[in-house]
Amino acid sequence: MTLLEGGVCAPQGFKAAGVVAQIKNLRSTKKDCALIASDTVATCAGTFTTNKLKAPPASWTEGVCIRGTMQALFINSGNANACTGSRGMEDAKATAEKIAKGFGASITEVGVLSTGVIGVPLPMDRIANGVDACIASLASDGHLAAAEAIMTTDTIPKEYALEVALSSGTIRMGAIAKGSGMIAPNMATMISVITTDAAIDASLLHTTLKEVVNQTYNCICIDNDMSTSDAVVVMANGVSGVCIEEHTPDYETFKAALLEISTHMAHALVRDGEGATKFIEINVTGAQNDTDAKAIARSIAHSQLCKTAFFGQDPNWGRIACAAGYADADFDAGYLSVSIEGLEVVHEGLPTVYDEADAAALMQLDDIHVDVCVGTDAGKATFWTCDLSHDYVTINADYRT
Amino acid sequence: MTLLEGGVCAPQGFKAAGVVAQIKNLRSTKKDCALIASDTVATCAGTFTTNKLKAPPASWTEGVCIRGTMQALFINSGNANACTGSRGMEDAKATAEKIAKGFGASITEVGVLSTGVIGVPLPMDRIANGVDACIASLASDGHLAAAEAIMTTDTIPKEYALEVALSSGTIRMGAIAKGSGMIAPNMATMISVITTDAAIDASLLHTTLKEVVNQTYNCICIDNDMSTSDAVVVMANGVSGVCIEEHTPDYETFKAALLEISTHMAHALVRDGEGATKFIEINVTGAQNDTDAKAIARSIAHSQLCKTAFFGQDPNWGRIACAAGYADADFDAGYLSVSIEGLEVVHEGLPTVYDEADAAALMQLDDIHVDVCVGTDAGKATFWTCDLSHDYVTINADYRT
Repeated sequence: MTLLEGGVCAPQGFKAAGVVAQIKNLRSTKKDCALIASDTVATCAGTFTTNKLKAPPASWTEGVCIRGTMQALFINSGNANACTGSRGMEDAKATAEKIAKGFGASITEVGVLSTGVIGVPLPMDRIANGVDACIASLASDGHLAAAEAIMTTDTIPKEYALEVALSSGTIRMGAIAKGSGMIAPNMATMISVITTDAAIDASLLHTTLKEVVNQTYNCICIDNDMSTSDAVVVMANGVSGVCIEEHTPDYETFKAALLEISTHMAHALVRDGEGATKFIEINVTGAQNDTDAKAIARSIAHSQLCKTAFFGQDPNWGRIACAAGYADADFDAGYLSVSIEGLEVVHEGLPTVYDEADAAALMQLDDIHVDVCVGTDAGKATFWTCDLSHDYVTINADYRT
Repeated sequence: MTLLEGGVCAPQGFKAAGVVAQIKNLRSTKKDCALIASDTVATCAGTFTTNKLKAPPASWTEGVCIRGTMQALFINSGNANACTGSRGMEDAKATAEKIAKGFGASITEVGVLSTGVIGVPLPMDRIANGVDACIASLASDGHLAAAEAIMTTDTIPKEYALEVALSSGTIRMGAIAKGSGMIAPNMATMISVITTDAAIDASLLHTTLKEVVNQTYNCICIDNDMSTSDAVVVMANGVSGVCIEEHTPDYETFKAALLEISTHMAHALVRDGEGATKFIEINVTGAQNDTDAKAIARSIAHSQLCKTAFFGQDPNWGRIACAAGYADADFDAGYLSVSIEGLEVVHEGLPTVYDEADAAALMQLDDIHVDVCVGTDAGKATFWTCDLSHDYVTINADYRT
């Protein structure tokens, strides 16, 4: 796999745009409408939030993904179009319709997603302007503008692209994502759009995406709050001429590339987590099964006490052990071992003899790996999180006003 | 019910003490050893943490409570005696033995509890000094010293006492508690000791305590982290001569008093939560059952985004609706209504027309009641939490060092 520039426009036959349409309010000067479009109809797959207050645009786009083909995906930031009742779905559909007309596509092949404030109807006049401006400026170098337009409290745009050599030719895969708040696992945890010029059946794409999302976007947390708008959407337009069939080495390589790109984007979300100063990887091994391992890893990753200890650069393994201990998983505390950056601080339930200064020095790192072993079985899982800082509180005490 | 002074010493036949024994380190000047003792052997009951790394003292005292009689309960702060292996249990037992000898009680009727740093063996020489000093200073006015000695990051000692008139006489009930960090529901969430001079069978006391804990200490959260040392212990010494029998009006009054004292102490813990500036009550009604209602209330009470919005005094009902939406409970988002201090901001899934200034003014209150209705069924629950402030982060980024 080779790294490429170009984000979602790196695969052949994709264009993107990002424009300012003042969706949040008339003082807003940031890009807030994005369009990602394929020259030809693409197969698609998506995973969406499981929040009962799922926003109407997420429901609309889930419908498009169930049908399995998509040509364009419009995303606005600044307004989530969530808790907006029947009007919310009418607005989502009207947005898709306007794009379909302007772009010359079928309305059932246009996805729409929204992210931002909950409970305020979309300003449809400004959305219409945003749609027009996006269609007018669609270009094969529009990827960064699109990545910028979907940002909310993100501090940096997130994009990534790969080239992958397969037996029958070369394909490309690109992605953009936004995140940083209302990030919790066990669903598609933010908005991410992945494009590829491979040809792949929609249902195989869906199976593959679900498996990959479960190991990547569903293994991160920033603040444990599951948003109403989360979505990961993949569009595969087949322009490369390379066809991905199940049970082939090329399929495995395709899946590995999707895993690589999703891992990269999931990590990028955590690194840019609201107020984050550190990137923490929690590896759990020795559990009775992978589900138990994930529960333990998630419990540590969610713990406010662990996250503030990481912020304070305090090698407080007691909090890590404690969070493992209340996870919904079965293990014997007498087997618990904990290492911070390779320094074993707990061995089989008891603190080791180590130099506190060594442990404190390791906690100064920006990236910290915590290994937790809970037994001798094969269950394992990895989870990624960030620390909980003063800036998280500041950002979220002030977000709306 | 009449309010009394005297905390755990308000019931007849109880004495208490709190002394400085430098348990945390030799620079420590705060009281850190407490003893609560009955002149005669009391029946007892307890609920304890369900953390798999349950500290040895909690296990020891659970054993005492299973046997059902207790004469003395020793508690140290500054060291949790958790993750200390087999030595931890030996130390807990040695502490109980020293108290039993000094006090003239049976070792199986002496409870010990520890709270503080995890993973450091108890300094047994200083514990021995603490035990001696506690026994020497036991007095019927020692309640406040005991309440102070069990504090960790608490900012104020917590005690409460009631007098209750029953058909066969008057009983008293008193309590001390400590909390403020590692507080999460679904277990006994901190250390609380309740004394009463009523006579009650240990197994009836246990059933009653479990029911009460489930509605009080298990319905609060500060930071969602379940400690290794949580315990609620009740001692009933019968000195009043008033006997509590099941299926009588007096039993109902006794239970109501235990509920009142536990509610008061649970609220006191939340009000003194680490960094807390506000006390938030979440009432959920209309759920399919009480379990669903509790899941929704807990989800809102745990949400970092809701808690930072409360700190920021932002009437951000979108975050409340969102947290309800991802709770593990079944409801139709079209029925969701949310009121803040009686001002309805969401009605049947849609924002109401209200003056943002009115809502913002209500958020300035120190105590905020949030009512969430999710349907037309009878399931209901109440949960209490605090906001998430800069001070929480400061306290927990620095706790150990």
